[in-house]
Amino acid sequence: MVPNLVTALTGPINELEARVLESMPAIERWFRLEWMEHTPPFYTSVDLRNAGFKLAPVDTNLFPGSFNHLTPQMLPLAVQAAMAAIEKICPEAKNLLLIPERHTRSPEYLANLQCLIQVFNQAGLNVRLGSLDEDLKSPVPLALPDGGELVLEPLLRARGRLGLKDFDPCTILLNNDLSAGTPAILEDLHQQYLLPPLHAGWGVRRKSRHFRSYEEVAKKFAKLLGMDPWLINPMYGQCGQVDFGEATGLECVQSAADQLLAKVRRKYKEYGIAEKPFVVVKADNGTYGMGVMTVRDAKELDEISRHTRERMSVAKDGQHISEVIIQEGVPTHERVADAAAEPVVCMIDRYVVGGFYRVHGERGIDENLNAPGSDVVPLAFAESTQLPRPGAKPGASAPNRFYMYGVIGRLAMLAAAYELEATDPDAEIYE
Amino acid sequence: MVPNLVTALTGPINELEARVLESMPAIERWFRLEWMEHTPPFYTSVDLRNAGFKLAPVDTNLFPGSFNHLTPQMLPLAVQAAMAAIEKICPEAKNLLLIPERHTRSPEYLANLQCLIQVFNQAGLNVRLGSLDEDLKSPVPLALPDGGELVLEPLLRARGRLGLKDFDPCTILLNNDLSAGTPAILEDLHQQYLLPPLHAGWGVRRKSRHFRSYEEVAKKFAKLLGMDPWLINPMYGQCGQVDFGEATGLECVQSAADQLLAKVRRKYKEYGIAEKPFVVVKADNGTYGMGVMTVRDAKELDEISRHTRERMSVAKDGQHISEVIIQEGVPTHERVADAAAEPVVCMIDRYVVGGFYRVHGERGIDENLNAPGSDVVPLAFAESTQLPRPGAKPGASAPNRFYMYGVIGRLAMLAAAYELEATDPDAEIYE
Repeated sequence: MVPNLVTALTGPINELEARVLESMPAIERWFRLEWMEHTPPFYTSVDLRNAGFKLAPVDTNLFPGSFNHLTPQMLPLAVQAAMAAIEKICPEAKNLLLIPERHTRSPEYLANLQCLIQVFNQAGLNVRLGSLDEDLKSPVPLALPDGGELVLEPLLRARGRLGLKDFDPCTILLNNDLSAGTPAILEDLHQQYLLPPLHAGWGVRRKSRHFRSYEEVAKKFAKLLGMDPWLINPMYGQCGQVDFGEATGLECVQSAADQLLAKVRRKYKEYGIAEKPFVVVKADNGTYGMGVMTVRDAKELDEISRHTRERMSVAKDGQHISEVIIQEGVPTHERVADAAAEPVVCMIDRYVVGGFYRVHGERGIDENLNAPGSDVVPLAFAESTQLPRPGAKPGASAPNRFYMYGVIGRLAMLAAAYELEATDPDAEIYE
Repeated sequence: MVPNLVTALTGPINELEARVLESMPAIERWFRLEWMEHTPPFYTSVDLRNAGFKLAPVDTNLFPGSFNHLTPQMLPLAVQAAMAAIEKICPEAKNLLLIPERHTRSPEYLANLQCLIQVFNQAGLNVRLGSLDEDLKSPVPLALPDGGELVLEPLLRARGRLGLKDFDPCTILLNNDLSAGTPAILEDLHQQYLLPPLHAGWGVRRKSRHFRSYEEVAKKFAKLLGMDPWLINPMYGQCGQVDFGEATGLECVQSAADQLLAKVRRKYKEYGIAEKPFVVVKADNGTYGMGVMTVRDAKELDEISRHTRERMSVAKDGQHISEVIIQEGVPTHERVADAAAEPVVCMIDRYVVGGFYRVHGERGIDENLNAPGSDVVPLAFAESTQLPRPGAKPGASAPNRFYMYGVIGRLAMLAAAYELEATDPDAEIYE
């Protein structure tokens, strides 16, 4: 199934698809060369938006929690990618310690953990779960939707190493985005591999820094294909000190939104796009879809309601939003059964291992779909397990469209690699 | 679909399956460590036989010609494995030169080439076909079953490099088993990667040498799992100077067959196996299934018919058989729609990328199925793209049975790695 692309203007995307397809060997070689220079994040998921006239990543998650949405047919790809990843990091590894989200015990999230455990089991690792919850003093069973159970165990820290009782891992895999900050127990683990690194956590990471790297990657890639990078790059601005609750610092947001809207308007004019531009204001660190606001006119920020201010001021774990990113809005023109849909690409190491559609029946094409009430359609991407079909009409072939999504997803992953290098506190500076 | 295992004695295989499954992380780690020390062949296919009481490889092909039998669902695994392989060998590669079989223009074989080209294209390589046929002076189009075409081009040799017109490859991939000997044009290519290496060709390679390495691997693996290596290892003998046409050297074959049958009989007694043992006599180098003979009693070799002698004396490309391997016969007790079936496992680099069943409706369970009239069932393995299901009843789950086949297939591939190291003419000797 290919979700419908409901828009009059699909020319640019179909042209992009055709160009991506005809350049396939060159693109794959380009990625191969980039990965020689840059280390991919351990695992990544990327939210994309296809506007018909533009296809761009809008969020790059370095602690993906949606492996349960991959269909069983895709899991062998995940296993193979996990094997390749482990082999590079810690080939002698027997044990992997997985550190999940702290407060999330939803059946969905537990199914995600179960899937990760299965994948790493089959890649040749014993996997156990360690909790960052300091109140957890003994192993706690967690019932799984399928009747099985997982066991969450207290972490044991001994000087340079972190483990569990009778469990000394070579690699510690975080599936916790550390948006509440970096726990002391994870610091200075110099004898083990902690992945993703601490500076990938949302306490440190900034979306604007990611999109700065993405812009660099998009420009390189656009040069390779001979196209305008804007077709795959969402423009952005940022503001450092904003308090929505106290309504301070909003002038910066307003001015950035105004400038960005003007830039988008020029681009729309250049491409003959008849839609109304919008920008999205959101926390510059991750908030699980909370605190996201669509702005079509900078004046809207003059009369921002108390309700919206409250909604925007509180992010995950009670953190206040103070830094914001103002991002070019990319409408999603894909529909699954009439509901707005956006593709999510899942990767392990440098490999696309699958994907799915996030669908929201009550949200508009210019709104955040990662919100309560959203749903996933895990089947959509299953066909991507077929190879691209050169010769198919642009826009008409599911494998071809999904191959293109996999390429853009990997561009965002490469940007995350650039970003993590640039922000690495332990990096040696050669300049 | 799991083909029926039609035999009273399935206990040992079900126990092996259960043990393989419960040891999965340990097995995968063991392979990971082995691959740190030993380089896997570029690609491999392995014919297996499941007797219910025993599961063993009977042939390991280093120039697999059956990628067209993989279902589309399996191809992404092949692409991912090809990416991993290329990245290690020649990460900057743009071009791959593929050298196919010389005289084989069957639609089946061309579909195999088409599939290989597609896989390496998507792994980021431009692929062209170069012919070993010296009479080929200009590009020749070859029509494909699906209406497309391939182009076979004359090879161009310039000092240390081999290529085509305007095509200088980093890697040369042989899909030609060189059973007619090593062509001069392939020798001394020190500036490029020639894979598999020349000593993997059937002009040099010997089955008995492979099974010597396989025995070593099987013993290591059996130790890991705490089981009798015989359960996965076919015993063998060999004879060096046999001329079936002239009926000379047959005493050696007879005596080896007699000894081997006695050894098999003892094993059958130990395990309470009520079947009649047999051995298979075949050329010690590859013959595409030609010149294979089933022997149940060494006396049969006394009265070997003229017809059989003629059949046994001519191998592929008109080469005479002079060295033979006498191998413990492993009956196949798997049936697809009443026809004898044997699983074939396909691998690229260290990864299982799929498999299929070879089926022959007119051959017995103790005969070679790789013979005219054989057929393939490519669907059978499709379910192996699901992960093993711990907890399923041994013998009852297709993914679990196929996972076990993938493990034994990889043991044979590892044996080929040992074998190629031991027979490498350019290897430095440290001892």
